[in-house]
Amino acid sequence: MNYSFSNRIAALQPSIIREILKASSGQNVIPFSAGNPAPETFPIEAIRTFTQSILEQDPVTALQYGITEGYAPLRDTLTTHLKTGFDTGKASDELFIVSGAQQGIELACKVFCNEGDTIICESPSFIGSLNSFRASGANLVGVPMETDGMDIGKLEHALQTEQNVKLIYVIPSFQNPTGFTTSLEKRKAIYDLAKKYGVMILEDNPYGELRFSGEDVATIKSMDDEGLVIYVGSFSKILSAGLRVGYVLAPSEVVQKMVVAKQGEDVHTAMLPQILAHKFMTEYNYAEHISSIRAIYRRKSALMIDKLQEHMGESITFTQPDGGLFLWCDLPAHIPMLDYAKTAAAEGVAVVPGTAFLVDENEPCNAIRLNFSTPSDEQIVKGIEILGQVLHKF
Amino acid sequence: MNYSFSNRIAALQPSIIREILKASSGQNVIPFSAGNPAPETFPIEAIRTFTQSILEQDPVTALQYGITEGYAPLRDTLTTHLKTGFDTGKASDELFIVSGAQQGIELACKVFCNEGDTIICESPSFIGSLNSFRASGANLVGVPMETDGMDIGKLEHALQTEQNVKLIYVIPSFQNPTGFTTSLEKRKAIYDLAKKYGVMILEDNPYGELRFSGEDVATIKSMDDEGLVIYVGSFSKILSAGLRVGYVLAPSEVVQKMVVAKQGEDVHTAMLPQILAHKFMTEYNYAEHISSIRAIYRRKSALMIDKLQEHMGESITFTQPDGGLFLWCDLPAHIPMLDYAKTAAAEGVAVVPGTAFLVDENEPCNAIRLNFSTPSDEQIVKGIEILGQVLHKF
Repeated sequence: MNYSFSNRIAALQPSIIREILKASSGQNVIPFSAGNPAPETFPIEAIRTFTQSILEQDPVTALQYGITEGYAPLRDTLTTHLKTGFDTGKASDELFIVSGAQQGIELACKVFCNEGDTIICESPSFIGSLNSFRASGANLVGVPMETDGMDIGKLEHALQTEQNVKLIYVIPSFQNPTGFTTSLEKRKAIYDLAKKYGVMILEDNPYGELRFSGEDVATIKSMDDEGLVIYVGSFSKILSAGLRVGYVLAPSEVVQKMVVAKQGEDVHTAMLPQILAHKFMTEYNYAEHISSIRAIYRRKSALMIDKLQEHMGESITFTQPDGGLFLWCDLPAHIPMLDYAKTAAAEGVAVVPGTAFLVDENEPCNAIRLNFSTPSDEQIVKGIEILGQVLHKF
Repeated sequence: MNYSFSNRIAALQPSIIREILKASSGQNVIPFSAGNPAPETFPIEAIRTFTQSILEQDPVTALQYGITEGYAPLRDTLTTHLKTGFDTGKASDELFIVSGAQQGIELACKVFCNEGDTIICESPSFIGSLNSFRASGANLVGVPMETDGMDIGKLEHALQTEQNVKLIYVIPSFQNPTGFTTSLEKRKAIYDLAKKYGVMILEDNPYGELRFSGEDVATIKSMDDEGLVIYVGSFSKILSAGLRVGYVLAPSEVVQKMVVAKQGEDVHTAMLPQILAHKFMTEYNYAEHISSIRAIYRRKSALMIDKLQEHMGESITFTQPDGGLFLWCDLPAHIPMLDYAKTAAAEGVAVVPGTAFLVDENEPCNAIRLNFSTPSDEQIVKGIEILGQVLHKF
């Protein structure tokens, strides 16, 4: 059979970057290329206890069909958590549960974008979201990231010149892949431009609570008097990634459409993980747990930075993030980045070529992304040493 | 903000039927309108034991990110199960895990259909699938169901006259909503027509193992020498609906595209439910469990049929299904079906108007769908008595 795939799916091309990642996915490779939370951040003992108690006390709710909007007690708890902790959420907003933040991002696109409509993205940005938008047939326009967020002048230029712009997609805190945090001024500017041009903002905040230095910056959603912001959060980095529980806070009218679209995708998010997330938020020492995760990432980030300075300090520049899971390293101009990544993989260290995160992979970019949450401390020490050796070979 | 939703989402209209269902969703209503598996079919004790053992033995695999294709041991077990139990699956096929069968159905549409492309459906058919196709912007064409499957002449006529037909969507065994099973002859005819016109078949088989009388009929996928069939299965009716685990068996080339599309939707299906499904298939007495579910539904179906005959036998006609969860009841021509359903709801019995399942809800249909898996035996006895009283009022 000669398959005739839909245009949006047929257009997705396997990229050279994915080939590099495949080549470096072996068991003995040091995984600076991943984005997994550190396994020691999973509250395993509590998950055991909570799961047992759920399956003793009310197994049928955990195992039967649920409603698409999600487990009501979890929705209520999250609504309160966002309001009291981050002043985020108005009376006109509603919160519903999704199967990981990725689904919230995909649904926002589905609900607002016809094929060919434009989404303005930070460039570089999270590859999972970019690929999801591409699979939906959206047209992506990148706005360069600066250390304090998108280039606002270029954002306004894009809003003025691009056709059918429906969403501005941003990861304001400890961005993936750069680790940059968008300043309060730029958050306000982005919101004001969205209002001026009548475009929705998709605020993706999976790392928001993982700040290990500096002060919290207000969410864009907290400024949302006009109902312009779809806010997406996740349990993946604070409880468990494999449970696939995230949430969306957005104007009720938008949530109603997203819920109908979700129903057609997976009916509802698995119940046992939802009830588990609820117990985690209400019966566990949530604040202390978050604080312990922050301490782990503070240590790992500092260790990686320390080793980078030791082995490559004079040659490269890199972010010193205030939270999240990633560092963004600019290689010297004379080093061919893709060759560097390939050689590093051959030497047993996987990194992600920065071009993977660009809206247009063919644009120039001489950076690599390093993840410090997945590797062990020993792997960080050894891996950065190897990256230094590879650098000096070039 | 005046939201401008995408065309496919904006076109979704709340239907009169959903309003009836909402009105009849109260706590004290007898739920003949549902499609939930009977809670007594959940192997709760085994789920407790397996979950505990998973979280003791390998918690990190259950809680960490997994690959999009799914948990490898579960994929292998299901591949073997389909091959040995149902002669279903060729060397050129591949199996991957989805977040419930609904996701497999949605992904098939996403991968093959551009907006406006046509999907030929049985009419009536499963409302969840129809709404998912609608939310993707597909054009639906219904082919009337007969007691032994689609009207084959009308199917061929549709294949000849409709533009851009990409999928034929069928539920061959104990169809939702009719309970009809497509005969072997018609399965062959549907396959031959798909081959002749170069169209893919989407075979949805959530109830396949729930046969409580008669002999198994070969799956359409078992005839698939040309790689035309996407087969979708589910754990919802044999293990737990709330865990959201299903699977897709399709030609590898198709699976690769569906996996990319799935990645953009939810990255992967929740790991703990996948590992649980694997343990259920390999460490539990699967055959005995299926046999016990069949016995429960055999009894419930017989009870409902018995009561229908007692209270309304002379007035209505209904299916006597060989499996699944549903009966389809044709009301006498003089009874206005929607009024009947509304009155029944007011009297405390929820049924689904048959029009809900039509490709075009405005077509004539004087049937209702009755579910016998959700209500208790007592509710079946009382509910059918009330439905009889309501009928005699008209």
